[in-house]
Amino acid sequence: MATISDVAKLAEVSVATVSRYINDSGYVGKKSRESIESAIQELNFVPSEVARSLSTKQSDIIGLIIPDIKNPFFPELARAVEDTAFEYGYTVILCNSDENATKEKHYLQKLTNKYVAGIIITSIIEQENHWHNVRLPIVALDRPINSKVPTVTTNNEKGAKIATNYLIECGATNLLCISGPKTFVSSQTRIEGFKLAGNQKNISTHIIESPYDFEIAEKILYGYLKNNPAIDGIFACSDASAIGALKAAHRLGIRIPEDMQIVGFDGIQVGNVVTPGLTTVAQNIYQLGQAAAKLLIEQIEGDKITQESVCIDPQLIIRETTRKERLE
Amino acid sequence: MATISDVAKLAEVSVATVSRYINDSGYVGKKSRESIESAIQELNFVPSEVARSLSTKQSDIIGLIIPDIKNPFFPELARAVEDTAFEYGYTVILCNSDENATKEKHYLQKLTNKYVAGIIITSIIEQENHWHNVRLPIVALDRPINSKVPTVTTNNEKGAKIATNYLIECGATNLLCISGPKTFVSSQTRIEGFKLAGNQKNISTHIIESPYDFEIAEKILYGYLKNNPAIDGIFACSDASAIGALKAAHRLGIRIPEDMQIVGFDGIQVGNVVTPGLTTVAQNIYQLGQAAAKLLIEQIEGDKITQESVCIDPQLIIRETTRKERLE
Repeated sequence: MATISDVAKLAEVSVATVSRYINDSGYVGKKSRESIESAIQELNFVPSEVARSLSTKQSDIIGLIIPDIKNPFFPELARAVEDTAFEYGYTVILCNSDENATKEKHYLQKLTNKYVAGIIITSIIEQENHWHNVRLPIVALDRPINSKVPTVTTNNEKGAKIATNYLIECGATNLLCISGPKTFVSSQTRIEGFKLAGNQKNISTHIIESPYDFEIAEKILYGYLKNNPAIDGIFACSDASAIGALKAAHRLGIRIPEDMQIVGFDGIQVGNVVTPGLTTVAQNIYQLGQAAAKLLIEQIEGDKITQESVCIDPQLIIRETTRKERLE
Repeated sequence: MATISDVAKLAEVSVATVSRYINDSGYVGKKSRESIESAIQELNFVPSEVARSLSTKQSDIIGLIIPDIKNPFFPELARAVEDTAFEYGYTVILCNSDENATKEKHYLQKLTNKYVAGIIITSIIEQENHWHNVRLPIVALDRPINSKVPTVTTNNEKGAKIATNYLIECGATNLLCISGPKTFVSSQTRIEGFKLAGNQKNISTHIIESPYDFEIAEKILYGYLKNNPAIDGIFACSDASAIGALKAAHRLGIRIPEDMQIVGFDGIQVGNVVTPGLTTVAQNIYQLGQAAAKLLIEQIEGDKITQESVCIDPQLIIRETTRKERLE
């Protein structure tokens, strides 16, 4: 007997699209609709109860709790979550926690009590017991919560190693790492990667802390670089602080990349707009959001969870704040 | 007898905060809570049914339909809507329409049928009859829908005049306006402002069209400026196209602001990050989102609507893509 997967395969659309068509539970384009109709006829397909399950779920709203949609990392992420939710017939409630535990708790409670089917969260609350009361499917995004909650993150250590090794290959020997706030696990993991890669003969390493904010980073780096002119390579744990460093260097007359090289982390669009263009370790932000939404919907719909956590490799994007790799 | 307003006044908080406190329907900070409690005691206040109305409303969700949260204009706007909604005890569903009429209609229908109390929308659908079926409070944001729907916009004509006059005052005589897509009313109004201000002796004006996209604008402007070297002043209807023009000028060896001056429109953060910093007419994006949310909540809660439409003045921010004003 033909299954929904067979229909999807023959119609060359996703299973979710066929499911939406059967349940009339979301948008299906004209072309897909026609392909599905012919596939159903050709295969003599009769929808099962499982295929209808999407239409019987209680809520079709997902809660997304992030620190701040104005932080350039989150619009693309929110977009990916919303696109994926849309594909499966869900809508997304957007909540900004401002890294404020009280606000985060308020939203968690409001969403839990009221109407959502599940929650995707970039949380600041690490206490294990806090999460015992949340009786809903959850996915932790960017920052792990505990071992029971599926997590989607970038491979931060690997990314930091790639960045640091690239600086060294391009001739930098006196390296500075601009870390993020101490409370961010992702920043701590990036520092680990920096230390591991920088632990080489004739390479010296230094670390300073800065918030992920253009303007504050510029001020901090202006002071630091003025007093430490030997620094010839910077690995910044965020593009925001990398761009702050770039502006500080500009003001101090330090030539980039001739006198000093910079590699950022994140891959936000503004890195491509600044002059010189920022070399960076780009997270696959869209893929992070997409993976989180899929993992959550799997839990909501009672499907077998295929992965407990997803760790996505970042990718080095070479632009103009680094010199060409030395051919030795 | 004391009213809820009296309590709010004495406690030095908003009426909405007192209402949330009374109905236990949203977040109230510790300090506000204490002030409200002493004010209630001092005034011997007894809450009326009206004051309790917030707790009996059917839905406390607002739908926000925008073209794309990745467009740098919208994160701050969404943030303002969410902040205001939070203050009044509402949450926000985020929908990206991609300027696609089918997707916009799908979302409108989904939100209308299901669960929201009202909708804020930046719409591409102008047909009057389309809106007759939407039986919910609506506020049009950035783009007017029709005379019956309250609208929140920037004073686009005034902003364009300010930009154009400033270019002329700074010595530009051969002006180019980079318009947005023809379907955007806001862009048309900015062109009108440009034409009115540019209609002066010894000033020549030209107009070309570009999408609000860094990279496409750069390509279009590269071709245009190569063939039109006399242009010495650009008014761009968006910061995105202004930054595209800046990059094109850089590639062509045109010095900014010495050979050519540029003024953008929008006031997005990236304008402050590029080198040289972009002079621009900044919309008060946060205020736009805040005004839209307030206007919607007034309608939802049956309050008297104080304003049918809100038109917010933009402000010139002078950075480095313009020369100093001539002192004549």
